[in-house]
Amino acid sequence: MDLLDDTVPGIGTYEDFNTIDWVREKSKDRDRHREITNKSKQSTVALLFSISDAFSGWLLMLLIGLMSGALAGGIDIAAHWMTDLKEGVCLNGLWFNHEHCCWASNETTFQERDKCPQWKSWAELMVGVSEGPGLYVVNYFMYMCWALLFAFLAVILVRAFAPYACGSGIPEIKTVLSGFIIRGYLGKWTLIIKTITLVLAVSSGLSLGKEGPLVHVACCCANILCHFFTKYRRNEAKRREVLSAASAVGVSVAFGAPIGGVLFSLEEVSYYFPLKTLWRSFFAALVAAFTLRSINPFGNSRLVLFYVEFHTPWHLLELIPFVLLGIFGGLWGNTCLGHYPVLEVVVVTLLTAFLAFPIEYTRMSSSELISELFNDCGLLDSSKLCGYTSNSGSASGSVNATAANGLGARLAGPDLYTAMWQLALALLFIPSMAVGAIAGRLLGVCMEQLAIRHHERDIFRGWCSPGADCITPGLYAMVGAAACLGGVTRMTVSLVVIMFELTGGLEYIVPLMAAAMTSKWVADALGRESIYEAHIRLNGYPFLEAKEEFRHKTLATDVMRPRRGDPLLSVLTESGMTVEEVERLIADTTYSGFPVVISQQSPRLVGFVLRRDLVISLENARRNQEGVVSMSPILFTECDPPMSPSAPPAVKLRSILDLSPFTVTVHTPMEIVVDIFRKLGLRQCLVIQNGRLLGIITKKDILKHMAQMANRDPDSILFN
Amino acid sequence: MDLLDDTVPGIGTYEDFNTIDWVREKSKDRDRHREITNKSKQSTVALLFSISDAFSGWLLMLLIGLMSGALAGGIDIAAHWMTDLKEGVCLNGLWFNHEHCCWASNETTFQERDKCPQWKSWAELMVGVSEGPGLYVVNYFMYMCWALLFAFLAVILVRAFAPYACGSGIPEIKTVLSGFIIRGYLGKWTLIIKTITLVLAVSSGLSLGKEGPLVHVACCCANILCHFFTKYRRNEAKRREVLSAASAVGVSVAFGAPIGGVLFSLEEVSYYFPLKTLWRSFFAALVAAFTLRSINPFGNSRLVLFYVEFHTPWHLLELIPFVLLGIFGGLWGNTCLGHYPVLEVVVVTLLTAFLAFPIEYTRMSSSELISELFNDCGLLDSSKLCGYTSNSGSASGSVNATAANGLGARLAGPDLYTAMWQLALALLFIPSMAVGAIAGRLLGVCMEQLAIRHHERDIFRGWCSPGADCITPGLYAMVGAAACLGGVTRMTVSLVVIMFELTGGLEYIVPLMAAAMTSKWVADALGRESIYEAHIRLNGYPFLEAKEEFRHKTLATDVMRPRRGDPLLSVLTESGMTVEEVERLIADTTYSGFPVVISQQSPRLVGFVLRRDLVISLENARRNQEGVVSMSPILFTECDPPMSPSAPPAVKLRSILDLSPFTVTVHTPMEIVVDIFRKLGLRQCLVIQNGRLLGIITKKDILKHMAQMANRDPDSILFN
Repeated sequence: MDLLDDTVPGIGTYEDFNTIDWVREKSKDRDRHREITNKSKQSTVALLFSISDAFSGWLLMLLIGLMSGALAGGIDIAAHWMTDLKEGVCLNGLWFNHEHCCWASNETTFQERDKCPQWKSWAELMVGVSEGPGLYVVNYFMYMCWALLFAFLAVILVRAFAPYACGSGIPEIKTVLSGFIIRGYLGKWTLIIKTITLVLAVSSGLSLGKEGPLVHVACCCANILCHFFTKYRRNEAKRREVLSAASAVGVSVAFGAPIGGVLFSLEEVSYYFPLKTLWRSFFAALVAAFTLRSINPFGNSRLVLFYVEFHTPWHLLELIPFVLLGIFGGLWGNTCLGHYPVLEVVVVTLLTAFLAFPIEYTRMSSSELISELFNDCGLLDSSKLCGYTSNSGSASGSVNATAANGLGARLAGPDLYTAMWQLALALLFIPSMAVGAIAGRLLGVCMEQLAIRHHERDIFRGWCSPGADCITPGLYAMVGAAACLGGVTRMTVSLVVIMFELTGGLEYIVPLMAAAMTSKWVADALGRESIYEAHIRLNGYPFLEAKEEFRHKTLATDVMRPRRGDPLLSVLTESGMTVEEVERLIADTTYSGFPVVISQQSPRLVGFVLRRDLVISLENARRNQEGVVSMSPILFTECDPPMSPSAPPAVKLRSILDLSPFTVTVHTPMEIVVDIFRKLGLRQCLVIQNGRLLGIITKKDILKHMAQMANRDPDSILFN
Repeated sequence: MDLLDDTVPGIGTYEDFNTIDWVREKSKDRDRHREITNKSKQSTVALLFSISDAFSGWLLMLLIGLMSGALAGGIDIAAHWMTDLKEGVCLNGLWFNHEHCCWASNETTFQERDKCPQWKSWAELMVGVSEGPGLYVVNYFMYMCWALLFAFLAVILVRAFAPYACGSGIPEIKTVLSGFIIRGYLGKWTLIIKTITLVLAVSSGLSLGKEGPLVHVACCCANILCHFFTKYRRNEAKRREVLSAASAVGVSVAFGAPIGGVLFSLEEVSYYFPLKTLWRSFFAALVAAFTLRSINPFGNSRLVLFYVEFHTPWHLLELIPFVLLGIFGGLWGNTCLGHYPVLEVVVVTLLTAFLAFPIEYTRMSSSELISELFNDCGLLDSSKLCGYTSNSGSASGSVNATAANGLGARLAGPDLYTAMWQLALALLFIPSMAVGAIAGRLLGVCMEQLAIRHHERDIFRGWCSPGADCITPGLYAMVGAAACLGGVTRMTVSLVVIMFELTGGLEYIVPLMAAAMTSKWVADALGRESIYEAHIRLNGYPFLEAKEEFRHKTLATDVMRPRRGDPLLSVLTESGMTVEEVERLIADTTYSGFPVVISQQSPRLVGFVLRRDLVISLENARRNQEGVVSMSPILFTECDPPMSPSAPPAVKLRSILDLSPFTVTVHTPMEIVVDIFRKLGLRQCLVIQNGRLLGIITKKDILKHMAQMANRDPDSILFN
């Protein structure tokens, strides 16, 4: 049921790879709302429609939350199963992963949860080898084959069916949210291929963070669901409000952090984020998080992905290593930009396939890895990372075990040393968060060993009583993860809040903040762009960054077109032009709109008309209006001028004329112009002096000007 | 050290009770920044200055956090001591409160922590009575005297020294943040008096929420600290960024919820909230929260005020009572507006003084009360609210105690019934959060008793196994508190996040959200204004609400001045006017600015000049420029027109002319004009048609128009 229809189809829509006009879209929505409110007073049906319209936003949010949460759960389960498929298969049922296979088995003991006769590694299954180096070689080979197959399949799928499913997606989503149109980027094919590819890529062990793809998946869901609601289908601005909420949903399911997700959307992704959207995003993010939890892909029924509980408070002096981790994160964030994307992917795929199997820490999925790194060693932990002498001592009955009660002297044992060099190797292959976590854990273990071996020194004395553990390497891993993620994405508040939600304690927020702040400062000092902004710039998208202030002292007159020496601005006059003249002007130029003035001699601004609207209206008039010929006059005026009865009928186009175009004077500083463009979401702005129209500034002009002022190539801005 | 000085003192400043021009202030700051950056390349001193300037914002935030945290801690400690002073005094030292007095004493047992010989109630001390009704009467009398004395002192202090210290402060701070100037509202006297009054009011038992006053206190701190930093002292826009962060600090110390505080500032208080402010606010809020924690006024070394741990998950059916609490909150939020503030205060003071003593729950401070209400009953709880038969049974050896193991059958005992009616009475006297908490606890206990007595019924069977406690009344209290706070303030996300931080668990976020949403919807359906907005409207402040959209279909031409039939717009011409003419125009009108046009015949806009700047410049010219007489011409032009040598010297005023005033066309819909005013923070906007200046729209005009469209008195808007 649609109460509102446009007269001429196509008027008020946009072409692909163009920027929307936020002001017009918001006006359209207000008109629509006004009409519905007025009609609702007339009949009960209209009243019901008005109520359902008011609640449709909430319903949409609920659906987005449910769908994204369910998809994220499905992806996790599928990726888990396929990761295990690389190592072996369950005889009880192919659809069981390793863990479920052995849960279902009765022959599993608590100590060796992951060993059961039903789970067969490929070597056992295919060649019947069950021990010795042969087992290892065959398993290694199978692992490599599967990994390469998955990676190959992922690349083929993306190349063949949905090129838009490539990459993290956040740069494009930022651009779309700022008002750009990329048709198909959030379509159903992209969704399907992206989902499958994500599973394949995660299973093949390729290094990638899941938050980007999940944000893309959630935005695809939102865009598809928008089609069922007129309010959102037909309004680009309203749709973008929903997409903002969807990006919060994506982060919410990626980390299990709804508040962090909303802040991520607010801080990092969104362009226009009214308070109403804040509230709805929060609702959608919560629904998604709870849907994911009820699917329970990690089998621990916790909302948080990496649940950690630390026992030792941190000491003020530990801020020094935390800040060091921040510096590392900032440096790392600046080096990992892909200059040769294809080559990099190929190299990483091959390296991962060949080297992942021997190193324990690259064989596991990155969330398992991070979870193990964040972990504080308990008494019963079997992880190599907890291979302290006192732990291993309790099994082998060493002398230390009694000397240090419980977890007391956490001197490193051989297992821990093995773990350390394996971790150092693993540093090379994995996504930012895991890199940071590894670096943090390494530093943490070093600090810990330092403190234990030198606990009599002055600096440690106040804080490390002998025999007690005073440093938590898991905390260092967490801080390192935050620092690297911060260095790459330049997130700040949202990062700290995500970490806070992941770990569930305010206790450790100061170390996290110290690291995140240092990391951002270091990264900003080396290069102001985040990985997302770098991608946007490389792709030439028209994105007006809201975070950075325009600092140059140029005026509107320096940026506007036509420049000095160029031919005059192409304008239409409100009367006196014929259809043929206008059509020739359209054919001769590529501008996306034309100012309308009183006359060429007296360029007083009347309004602005968009090229697309003009073309559609003229075609429509030629087709449907009787007697329209090339010599028919075109009128933008309110009342008709006197005409001879023999003259061809006029084409009246005042309805497509924007009577309130934005204007600035030639003396307006560009910093103010940029501010207006950002805050109001303009496409173009006219420049006047003492009432005379002199030129025009478009978003592209501004971006080109900014590129020029930053000594970059202004022609790198490709789109309007 | 100040590198930048204005030429004529006073130019670019504002008068009291006026609105600032955000665009101009931000331009000023950018100019300043540009100058510092340019100079920093020339000398080392300037480079150091530039670095210190860049970090001054962070330093300021640190100081605000420390100062506000310390003040909040001091207020808590003082209020605690004075609350106890109403009941008695410590003989060991007058400065000990009841709890500390008995801690210091050795004769205290664990069971009766609050009874020790050193602590004397007034009756024991003054008349020597230590038992019987005499004790009660004397204590009652003394309690009343103290309460009235504190209340009286508070009123006297506010009336005599700082009238601005009156009230919650949030409405005024919202107005100030939106760009209004109220000198002295955030000054040192207000800070001192507000702090003392807050202590007195809390101690006297007056019903008030602490978040409002603490936000005011934090903003005063911020404003005072701004005076030490040129960057913030001299720029109204930058100062407001700091104040936005300070309001986050206020909420952070009021609830111990830094993230919630930042979201509160973003959602509820702030007007201009760039992302940089988000990050800094978060930093300041954290510093304040940790400062408060290290002062440790509640003696439990926890950051969260009401730490609760619930053991039972909630059931889906419980959403019904939660939604009911939401409805209650929404209704309550609409009734508690003060129409007769003075009378209300007097009545409440008297009632509180007379009735607070006999009711246990009004005698305690409201944070103690809320903490007790949120509490889930443990085995050892001595609170009357935990007076279940099984609990009292374990002492008196009743039959039930064995039948129900542990907390099993939580049948209400007589203590609980007493507590219930006392709570119901207490409902009348206390601030919103406590009202909600009481209502929630009452409903929770009812539900619990219902479930226990009818656990065989169908609806309870799936969820309440007999003998187990299946309903947590503490959770109901929490949900009720959120609902009432939401109904009064119309907070949404920030409310849920504050509650989440208070309680530290995502588990209970769905009930909280359901209640907060219902409460907001109900309250909005009954009247769209929050308590803050209602106060702003009653005071006639010029506040342009950013949350509500302007929905009417009027155009700029309907709002601009002069109206049809009015005399023409008062304009200046860029040349041709004399000093005398301009002075007469200033004397004859009260406008705060004048457009400058080419000539009266050809009203083409050149620029805009502010009245204050014009007056100061003319006075300055008359005083300092030689030969200026009444007949001297005033020139706003770039180059001087030819003049006879005998003519008096011209006064050149182009430097005070704003060459880029904002303009809209007469056809611009008011919804767009309102949007521009909000987003850019304008004071006025000129209206043109086909290049001719026709009128002007000021912020006051817009507010009057909005009042008119909402059928309110347009003359209620008092200020510009």
